[in-house]
Amino acid sequence: MDNFQNSVGLVEVQSLTFAEPPDTLALASGKSLGPITIAYETYGTLNRDRSNAILMTHAFSGDAHAAAYHNESDKHPGWWDSMIGPGKAFDTDQYFVICTNVLGGCAGSTGPSSINPETGKPYALDFPMVTIVDMVECQRHVVDHLGIDKLLCVTGGSMGGMQTLQWVASYPDRIHAAIPIATALKHSPQQIALDEVGRQAVMADAEWDRGNYYGKGLPRKGLALARMIGHITYMSDKSMEDKFSRNLKDKDLSFSFIEDFEVEGYLRYRGDSFVKRFDANSYLYITKAMDYFDLSGDLLFPHGGTVDIRFLVIAFGSDWLYPAYQSREIVHLLKTRGVEATYCEIKSTYGHDAFLLEIEEETHLIKHFLDKTVQLVQKGK
Amino acid sequence: MDNFQNSVGLVEVQSLTFAEPPDTLALASGKSLGPITIAYETYGTLNRDRSNAILMTHAFSGDAHAAAYHNESDKHPGWWDSMIGPGKAFDTDQYFVICTNVLGGCAGSTGPSSINPETGKPYALDFPMVTIVDMVECQRHVVDHLGIDKLLCVTGGSMGGMQTLQWVASYPDRIHAAIPIATALKHSPQQIALDEVGRQAVMADAEWDRGNYYGKGLPRKGLALARMIGHITYMSDKSMEDKFSRNLKDKDLSFSFIEDFEVEGYLRYRGDSFVKRFDANSYLYITKAMDYFDLSGDLLFPHGGTVDIRFLVIAFGSDWLYPAYQSREIVHLLKTRGVEATYCEIKSTYGHDAFLLEIEEETHLIKHFLDKTVQLVQKGK
Repeated sequence: MDNFQNSVGLVEVQSLTFAEPPDTLALASGKSLGPITIAYETYGTLNRDRSNAILMTHAFSGDAHAAAYHNESDKHPGWWDSMIGPGKAFDTDQYFVICTNVLGGCAGSTGPSSINPETGKPYALDFPMVTIVDMVECQRHVVDHLGIDKLLCVTGGSMGGMQTLQWVASYPDRIHAAIPIATALKHSPQQIALDEVGRQAVMADAEWDRGNYYGKGLPRKGLALARMIGHITYMSDKSMEDKFSRNLKDKDLSFSFIEDFEVEGYLRYRGDSFVKRFDANSYLYITKAMDYFDLSGDLLFPHGGTVDIRFLVIAFGSDWLYPAYQSREIVHLLKTRGVEATYCEIKSTYGHDAFLLEIEEETHLIKHFLDKTVQLVQKGK
Repeated sequence: MDNFQNSVGLVEVQSLTFAEPPDTLALASGKSLGPITIAYETYGTLNRDRSNAILMTHAFSGDAHAAAYHNESDKHPGWWDSMIGPGKAFDTDQYFVICTNVLGGCAGSTGPSSINPETGKPYALDFPMVTIVDMVECQRHVVDHLGIDKLLCVTGGSMGGMQTLQWVASYPDRIHAAIPIATALKHSPQQIALDEVGRQAVMADAEWDRGNYYGKGLPRKGLALARMIGHITYMSDKSMEDKFSRNLKDKDLSFSFIEDFEVEGYLRYRGDSFVKRFDANSYLYITKAMDYFDLSGDLLFPHGGTVDIRFLVIAFGSDWLYPAYQSREIVHLLKTRGVEATYCEIKSTYGHDAFLLEIEEETHLIKHFLDKTVQLVQKGK
């Protein structure tokens, strides 16, 4: 397999548990949570002065498995393997790459499907609301645990870009550079609306049972439906035309409610696959975290009027879920505060998915940006 | 009330029943249906030579009540009252305007909620699949019934635009002019995908009960959800920002799953209102009819290489559900066949809803176009 040859190889998920009694983590909501386990993976080697660490932050339905393979028979590598590995954009011969599963998630980190130590049962809706601030707080614990004072860079696309921006707001002195990709300073009402229909789809499913489906049913239909809506927003009108056009699944129209068009079959397949790997309550909590996210204006700079961080901001022309104007707003805000920011809008027909697919362009931009960052850091910028 | 003063006044829904035994209507699917009732309204007066009739065709969730009021205490006039009435774009002092509820609908015309004469119960999913061709065939029966040989104009927005184009394909000799608005020659995969998630939302609701909910439950949650998705597509990113921004319903974030943002409350309200007036099975049938619609290329001209019809094609800049490029495709096709077509793309921030809201611009364009059409018809064009 081509990727496997050119990959980090095999990797194991690790985890860190903190906020153990009598400790807890104070959440942005005012509530507290503990103990907390955060799953993470690392690729490459941390250098002696611990100066080559890059933190990847994942998108809504991602996980800590950003690159490499979990075992020899693994068919698919991590979600950004095309970008992380020897010689790749995030070159593991040079950098130490970390990726954590977000708080509230369902791939090894504490979330609503985790056991509530007070009851011995899954938290379900007793899980406190978490925010992007809290997610970053947990990542900071992992970074501390790894003995890293200052990250060379934080990066991520979509919700990963929000976490990247949150690092800027929460710990501006602990990162040299930031690469927010296909993201926004805050969710627009359209983005909130799209999240809300996803949540309503889950909650409308009788099997959801107010979140108490664990060990019983599963809100399969609702969660699949939410994901179908999601997939439409991840693609573009053009990429759907290129991939499906009006191609029929069978020779003729059925004149019934079975799936006639390939695009219908694709959405149903994507919805059904998602249900197998993602927790419905995590869907609710994480979308809400995105909707609450707002670092517009002064909110990006709670520690002062500016930050000493280099930025590379990337957007994609056909992305209508996180339109390029939202990335330009980030750049505009940074420029008004005298922050060094490079903006690149990549022409692409892939829509929001482009950040996972436009590898060649992204690699070119990011490699150059990281090289320059290393030079400046070494010069004691 | 301002509109009432400037309105047609009071109007009654009429209906026509045809395809009564032993007759039936042959449908595009190969099946047949009968008897069929079509609800319709008319505004203005048909002139002596029956040459001043304009047919309005409604969008997905519309009905025959395009203008005026049903009674003195009616708070809201018909769905396009701002365009139909004395002195308005479709001037009822001059024209005789007809609007029918589509076949498959739920506002007086035969649809899946109608009684199946063979069983004495609602058709539910025994209702045959209907297409835009069949809808137009029913309208033709109404036009015949009114004794009109040739319509001055057929017009409609969105799905109404599809019916307008279908008139061109089905009865090119029976219309002088056509005004398709915010529509397409065929549904794109994105449009099919959006319809499909709406259908899946309805069908995922246990109350839907394979369509047999009449007299029992109602797939309220599923249908409301489908409508919420719809409303996002009817607005634009910009119009949502203008209307809602990130305004909260209450003073603070709730840190719970109740509605925090105004936009969430709006969508839930719209979803709930829709359930009160629209039949869930009609939702399924009519969206399928739109998805099946395809008059691209030669399909628009089944009777020959061209048509003798004047066109005014209108699109809106921020409409992402029926993007302007789809209207330009209509114009391009017409021009290649030597058909007289005027194209106007109206700048608007309202998204797809613009065709119901950009009254001043539309009035200006349409009044002029109709005047010119009348002149040409009188000259024996």
